[in-house]
Order: sequence, then C-alpha cells, then structure tokens
Amino acid sequence: MTERMFDTTCIGNAIVDVIGKTDDAFLEAENLVKNSMNLIDESRAEELYAKMQSAIEMSGGSAGNTAAGIASLGGKCAYVGKVRDDQLGAIFSHDIRASGVTFETKKTTNGAATARSLILVTPDAHRTMNTYLGACIELGPEDIDPAMIAASKVTYMEGYLWDPEGGKKAFRKAAEISHAAGQRVSLTLSDSFCVNRYRDEFQEFIKSGVDILFANEEEVKSLYETDSFDAALDAVRGHVEIACLTRSEKGSIIVSGAEVHQIEAESGIEVVDTTGAGDLFAAGFLYGFTNGHSLAASGRIGSMAAAEVISHYGARPVADLRDLLRKKLAVA
Amino acid sequence: MTERMFDTTCIGNAIVDVIGKTDDAFLEAENLVKNSMNLIDESRAEELYAKMQSAIEMSGGSAGNTAAGIASLGGKCAYVGKVRDDQLGAIFSHDIRASGVTFETKKTTNGAATARSLILVTPDAHRTMNTYLGACIELGPEDIDPAMIAASKVTYMEGYLWDPEGGKKAFRKAAEISHAAGQRVSLTLSDSFCVNRYRDEFQEFIKSGVDILFANEEEVKSLYETDSFDAALDAVRGHVEIACLTRSEKGSIIVSGAEVHQIEAESGIEVVDTTGAGDLFAAGFLYGFTNGHSLAASGRIGSMAAAEVISHYGARPVADLRDLLRKKLAVA
Repeated sequence: MTERMFDTTCIGNAIVDVIGKTDDAFLEAENLVKNSMNLIDESRAEELYAKMQSAIEMSGGSAGNTAAGIASLGGKCAYVGKVRDDQLGAIFSHDIRASGVTFETKKTTNGAATARSLILVTPDAHRTMNTYLGACIELGPEDIDPAMIAASKVTYMEGYLWDPEGGKKAFRKAAEISHAAGQRVSLTLSDSFCVNRYRDEFQEFIKSGVDILFANEEEVKSLYETDSFDAALDAVRGHVEIACLTRSEKGSIIVSGAEVHQIEAESGIEVVDTTGAGDLFAAGFLYGFTNGHSLAASGRIGSMAAAEVISHYGARPVADLRDLLRKKLAVA
Repeated sequence: MTERMFDTTCIGNAIVDVIGKTDDAFLEAENLVKNSMNLIDESRAEELYAKMQSAIEMSGGSAGNTAAGIASLGGKCAYVGKVRDDQLGAIFSHDIRASGVTFETKKTTNGAATARSLILVTPDAHRTMNTYLGACIELGPEDIDPAMIAASKVTYMEGYLWDPEGGKKAFRKAAEISHAAGQRVSLTLSDSFCVNRYRDEFQEFIKSGVDILFANEEEVKSLYETDSFDAALDAVRGHVEIACLTRSEKGSIIVSGAEVHQIEAESGIEVVDTTGAGDLFAAGFLYGFTNGHSLAASGRIGSMAAAEVISHYGARPVADLRDLLRKKLAVA
C-alpha cells in the first residue's frame, strides 16, 4: 500500500446523477435557481423525481467526475467517497473503478441509501442540481488512509464536502497529512451558495491550508463578498500558491504570485449540458500540473477537458481524453 | 377502469439497460455474437459487469421501449411487465410513467432483483445484449388485467417474453382476451436466437393467434428455416393479417394479403447505437395503424421513429416524436 504513488487523490460526495430534461417554467414552479446546487431531503427527492421526465442515470459527484477525468487523461488517481451497499452504490463503484481510478472507501451496510442528484437540464444547456446526500453523511476521518494521501502529489477536495458533518473532519485530516508529507492541498469552492453557507470557514481554511484553489467567477466574488472580479482576484492571490478562476465562455485565469495566465475557452463547441464543466477543468489542470506541464499548458488541458464534457449529457468524459490531448494539444 | 381505452398495450420483460462502449476484441474474448441477445444468470452478470467500461443506465426492455415510443408520438399506451421494489425497479417505473404510459403491474417484494441488460456498443454502432431476467421470471397470467386488454385496439408482445416461464402464459391469456373483445394481437419475433429457441411454438402461435407480426430479415428467415427472404415473406403472408419486415438500411416491407408496401429507411442519419431500432419501428407503425393511418403511412412513421432512436445512445426516444412527426411527415 505504502509504495503506491498518485498524481491526485480526490475526496468528495459519491453521487449518482439522475439527468432529465426540463424547461424554465418547471424550475420556476419548483422555486429552483438555475445553475445552483440545492440540498434536498429524501421526501423532497421522491417528490421531485415523481415530477421529472424520464431520465438517465450516470455516476457523478464533483470530485468523482474530476477523478474520472484525470484517469481518462492517463493520470494516476484515487477517490475517497461514501456509498451504501445498494444498486446505486454498485453503479458508482463500478464506474469509477472502470475509469481506472483506485476506489477503496468502505461501503455502509445500513442507514441512508447511496446519494443521488436530480439534475434538471434546460434547453439552454444549463443544469440545476438537487442533491440528496444519503450515505455521504457517513464519510468521516476514519475513511482517510494516511498512506494514500501522503503518496499523492495533490489531495483535491470539493467544497460540497463541507455539507455532510463528517466530511469537513475528513477534509481537515487529509489536508494535514498531505502537508506533513510535503504534498499539495487543492480545493474547489463548488457553488456560490455553498460559499455562502461556509464563507468564514472557507476563508480561514484557504489562508491556512490550500495551495491550489479552483473557483468560478461567482464563487470567488462570493468568497470575498465583492462585485468586482478583479478585487476578488487580488484578494485570493495572496492566500494561495495557485488560483484557477474559470469564467465560462470567457475562459479562465490562472494566477500564481506575480504570474497571470489568461486561457481562452475552446471555441466551436455545441454546448448540450454544462454539468461537470468545472470538474473537468480541474481534472485537466491537475493532470497537467502533476505531470510537469506549465501553468498555462495545464490550463489549456483544463479547457479542452471541460469542452468535451459540455458537448454531451453527463458529467464524465465520453471521449478518451488522452487521445484528445494528443490530437488537439500535441501533448503525450 | 373499464372505461379506459388504449391504442396499444405492450407486454414484455421490464429491464434497465446498462450501456457501455466496447470493441470487437472484447466481444470475441467473451464469446459474444454481435447483435444478439444473450440470456445470462446473476453470477455471469456480475462477472461481465466487472469487465465493462463505465456505463450509463436507462430504462429499456423491448416492449417498454415501444410503449415509450407510442406515448411520445401522442398515442394512448399501457405497459405490463415485472420489476422488484428495488432502486432499478423504481427507475424503470418512474421512466415509463414519466413517458406518459399507464403502468400498473404489481412489483415483487422478494426474490430476484429487477432485470438488467448489459449492452455493449461497438464503434460500428451495433449492440450486443446480455440480459439477466431477474424479477421478470415472476410475470404470470395473474398480471394480465382483462379490462385493460379488452380496451386496447392492439395488444403487443415481445417474443423475448417466451423466455421467462410465466411470460408465455400471460402472453396466451392476453391474446385470448384481446381476440374475444374483437381487438388485434401483435407480436415481434425479437431476435433470431429467440426464434431458434421457440420456432415450433412461435409458428403455431403466429398461425392461430397473431394479427400483426414484426420481424427483421434474420428473424423471419429463421422462423421458416430458409435462406431466402422472398420465401419467408411468402410463407408469413398467409399466416397473419399484416407482416412488417424490417431490413435495416434497406428499409422495410409491409405485407397484407395482396398489398405490398416498400418503405425506405430514413437517409442521412449518423448511426450511434442501433439499440431500440426495431422497438421504435413497431412504435411508429402501431401508433399510425391505431390512429387511422394507411399501412404505408404507418410504415413511414415507423422509419422516422427508428431513425431518431439510432442517432443517440439508448433505446428510448430523446426527441419529442410528436414534434418530429409534424415536422418531417406533416402528420398531426
């Protein structure tokens, strides 16, 4: 066990996505804010599912998508997240392992079912997520394998992990082990509502324990309670080694001390479903970064991976990203 | 209950599809014949799933796909099939009802899990199916509601229903009720291996109890043990009121007594996954036929519905078929 090495270990809520089409009128009738992630309980999940159109099921979870993306690029990746021993848990476990990711977290054998997110996709390709956390609330520090974290160049965690009680503790334990082993800690802010829920704790954790931060424009502005992207960028620059700030069709900006790289978004993409765009940007960047590429090159790999995932339904890559990398960026 | 009317009631094996990409080498290594449907037991299902790439889950089942297609076209449709009270059963039940299909078959509460079919799609868009029947073996004559069958212009059944023991009995009971009520019985031969398993019984049942038969070229040739499509066509012509014979890219032929209609396949389709092509042809034809369209027009609706379903992964329509019908065939 101790001799294994990983480019990245991703820790997150292990979720099966239930993806259905909808329209704006439905979102309005259900009081849902487009592009947000809403936490729902089991009875609301049943109620909303009953109102949804027929759907498709695919493994998801923000950090799970990132892990699958890193593996698809050819990176060595592990995943930590909690499912139950039910049919959805079997689906999640199968898919992440079939993607080439090491996944060893113990399943629960009683209590809440495997988590699912009811994802409503509108004709404009935007997604609105409604997540029942289920078995994810059972993740705790005991699920963190110190040898795995110490053997990972980067330990990456999703902000959503702050929602289940034990997740935060697992999160802090992993960060400590990673730093003690001389490795890096990375965090994505996940969602601006998530930032609202945990702003103070996030600010403190970022200052003290995060080396590589991922955030979109809304999230980083929410973190520093400012309407100005430039002000948010200046604030975050002093707090982390590297900040990757994504701005949808405006591309992304990678900041590291005095270095600033503007990365263009891929052009000519027919956008079908934006679910997973941020997760796959992180996958591409982390794959590049942990494999010796420059910040700018890593950002371009992120853009390419994000472009692939928004061109179809579902939050995990359908194409072989390693192939795409060779063809589009001439990176082996 | 007795006042309800249906265009079609579809009876079949209620299955969740697990769809993954593969290559020809994998099929060969696993001794799988491309385009066939293989029945597998639970342990083989586990073994094969463990070897599969990451997958997506979608409700399927041949007659279930046909039912969803009829409803998408705007037809009134009911479905009869057996699932368990597990997560996959909840997915199947949700999706077929969300498609607008009446589904009232009682779920099992113990025994085998809801059926699943591991569908391997090769780069040439062909599919090879591996079906674990699970809870489908519990379907029996007690699941046939006489009022529902009597109120259906057509009762449609899949040949696959001959595989689970009770299915055949349910099948025969439904056919008797349908005919006693002056309605029509329709059968699809499903698969040439299925025809091999039940050739004599199929021949007898078709002569005595089937009004509208669906078969592809291989299936109808297997039924009459001939290498000649024309010989098979001549044989079937005397046995059923209407025979719909599909020939993939060569289109289809609809025969009724002396009437013969050649229907062209839709052109310019980028074929992604052929799963459900036959099921959706049947949906289009039955929708047309039960709504007063001519045999030729019904056949064209069938071609259009089949073309939609092979243009994407999964065996149920993604587009609103009623919209397509208006746009492509100017049929309201």
